[in-house]
Amino acid sequence: MQDYISRAEKVMQRIEQLAAISEDAEGVTRTFGTDAFLRGRDLVQSWMEAAGLSTRTDSIGNLCARLSSRNPAAKTFVIASHIDTVVNAGKFDGPLGVLMGLDLLEQLAQQTTDLPFHLELIAFSDEEGVRFHSTYLGSKVVAGSFDPSLLDRADAQGITLAQALAKMGADARRLAQDAIPAEQWLGYFEAHIEQGPVLWERHIPVAVVTAIAGQQRVELQWRGMAGHAGTVPMDMRQDALCAAAEFVLAAEQFGQANKEKIVATVGKLQVSHAASNVIPGEVICSLDLRSADAARLASAYEELRQLAQSIASRRRVQLGWNAVQQTAPVACAPALSQQLSQAIAGAGHEVVELVSGAGHDAVPISAVAPVTMLFIRCYKGISHNPLENVELADLAAAIEVSERFLMELKINN
Amino acid sequence: MQDYISRAEKVMQRIEQLAAISEDAEGVTRTFGTDAFLRGRDLVQSWMEAAGLSTRTDSIGNLCARLSSRNPAAKTFVIASHIDTVVNAGKFDGPLGVLMGLDLLEQLAQQTTDLPFHLELIAFSDEEGVRFHSTYLGSKVVAGSFDPSLLDRADAQGITLAQALAKMGADARRLAQDAIPAEQWLGYFEAHIEQGPVLWERHIPVAVVTAIAGQQRVELQWRGMAGHAGTVPMDMRQDALCAAAEFVLAAEQFGQANKEKIVATVGKLQVSHAASNVIPGEVICSLDLRSADAARLASAYEELRQLAQSIASRRRVQLGWNAVQQTAPVACAPALSQQLSQAIAGAGHEVVELVSGAGHDAVPISAVAPVTMLFIRCYKGISHNPLENVELADLAAAIEVSERFLMELKINN
Repeated sequence: MQDYISRAEKVMQRIEQLAAISEDAEGVTRTFGTDAFLRGRDLVQSWMEAAGLSTRTDSIGNLCARLSSRNPAAKTFVIASHIDTVVNAGKFDGPLGVLMGLDLLEQLAQQTTDLPFHLELIAFSDEEGVRFHSTYLGSKVVAGSFDPSLLDRADAQGITLAQALAKMGADARRLAQDAIPAEQWLGYFEAHIEQGPVLWERHIPVAVVTAIAGQQRVELQWRGMAGHAGTVPMDMRQDALCAAAEFVLAAEQFGQANKEKIVATVGKLQVSHAASNVIPGEVICSLDLRSADAARLASAYEELRQLAQSIASRRRVQLGWNAVQQTAPVACAPALSQQLSQAIAGAGHEVVELVSGAGHDAVPISAVAPVTMLFIRCYKGISHNPLENVELADLAAAIEVSERFLMELKINN
Repeated sequence: MQDYISRAEKVMQRIEQLAAISEDAEGVTRTFGTDAFLRGRDLVQSWMEAAGLSTRTDSIGNLCARLSSRNPAAKTFVIASHIDTVVNAGKFDGPLGVLMGLDLLEQLAQQTTDLPFHLELIAFSDEEGVRFHSTYLGSKVVAGSFDPSLLDRADAQGITLAQALAKMGADARRLAQDAIPAEQWLGYFEAHIEQGPVLWERHIPVAVVTAIAGQQRVELQWRGMAGHAGTVPMDMRQDALCAAAEFVLAAEQFGQANKEKIVATVGKLQVSHAASNVIPGEVICSLDLRSADAARLASAYEELRQLAQSIASRRRVQLGWNAVQQTAPVACAPALSQQLSQAIAGAGHEVVELVSGAGHDAVPISAVAPVTMLFIRCYKGISHNPLENVELADLAAAIEVSERFLMELKINN
């Protein structure tokens, strides 16, 4: 175990060093293609090369390191996560998986035994989608599902993705060639902080991810009648905020009643022309529904729509219901997840299965390869926040589990 | 009745002419002391003088017209409302009472019989308080309760009230002399649109106002724990918006259960750092409580505070409760209101008694004089809005009722 602790310390130092590279002085902000992004990627590349790995950057700015099998016909197993961040991010979301992967490849590079598969470590260039409002740019290229029309999309400064790639020195004409063809994939493994409080509360270092939830995002508009807070009697009101409040609680109750299958959240709520002495005439709010079960997600969407409609009708308020975004659930590969569970048990930890409520690069990859994910306990479940943290012992446990998983993979392939 | 209709038409024409004077091209905006305000006041003054009334403007910019009794020791009866407006106002809130009063004095000025009281018509200069965030500047001067420290208060452009008065040609040194001493008051009458839907829905032209509600305004802060909408299980959340939503509905239910005595409104609600995929960590909302019954207002305040606290405790959310503003209820003078009710009945209308949920110039005046108010039916109860409207027949009824009230006042004094 001491060995894993010292390896965890080294990974942790690299996480700190990478986090020091940011677009601004405070916090960590390293969005796709910026100078800070490129400097961060250079640093990771220098570590990869120091470890004796061959490296390259691809046409979307992904950084790849490779340990090749002597068998040129061998399939490819990918370990990956991302090195871009949200604005004012934490240090761990993304880099943890990349730098844990680097530690694993560093160990393997020191061994002389041949691998039964090519092992590729990828630091994806854009998972968060902050700059171009489009998710998974990096992993979609590797999965072969990149949509070339995105090249014309502009960021807030009017710079298109094509221009950003040119500035990064990436060759957008090669985007199609950078995909790993489906038949060459052996599998995909991603380690990531949980970004939720389950492991933190239960004091368990890691969990196997069985699925990544699908998502339905809706914008609701409630239109009642604005009025003077002092002059309109209680029973003559059409208060848009009261209607929306009823829906907020209905969504919460629905989520709680179906908590094994669904999470439901109203994260945004705005009162138009709000004033303390005006009865709200219009409220816009969001609904975010997630489930690993596609059928349950669809039925929950329909049930909540009917609930909203019945609230609106009873309150004589008009309801606008606008589906904003929809993503399908992704199941992790049972065989790989089974091996990961065995590695967790083998390292002496309770095996916890979690559904990921957040999206990950594993989502686009799952279309072409068997995927599995390891979640690592993080401080209070806090993420996308400078308070994001991982304890050293939990990182060491994650390294041990991942190494056991990889060893087993070597034996079985 | 035809006579009252033609008088109402004339009042309506003047309301339209005054509304055409605005700080901006669209809508009506005539806040205190602006050029538009002064042009509007000049127009009203020209009508007063054309009617043979003696006029003056006072040290706070009020415009006063007078029909004096031949008995110099007679008391003064005041008919008044205001000619300033909110931003993007309607045409009727304020001017209706002034221009109806002008019609009444015009009729009396044509008669040769002496009045048993001095009759004063005042167009108050600032009721809405938009420019200096302070209500009732005009009527407080007349009531003798103007706070001279307000002279140093600056508007959004940094112009103090003292500077604004100087620019209007008003003499701030005379503020104390412009008060009507308590012993000289016979009474005060204000006609105003209801600004609520009761008369509109009931198809009744006017109502007697029995009281002006007191108000408690509170700012509530709900602090839970922000989190990822996909990764925090439903039963591990401390959702500040769910807590606030529960309070919004609790306040509504409390108001409905006590609707004869109380109105309760949450008009403002803001989610801090809101995003559709983030569980709300902090919500700020308002509470506006109004009642004509001071004891009931105080107990409602306490009951809602306890309700909020119990919601916060049960949900493990922190509650901040900050009393922002408090005004006491004002009772209209029973004798005057009784006479007004008789005038309403005498004109053939059902006598409806209403509590005013909005504040009016009658509030400061009530400290020194018996006050009464007549509410006039307005379109759907809409006010502070360009859609504000009054039907001609309702205005005619209001003129008849007011004239009957004044005639009775002449006989009894």
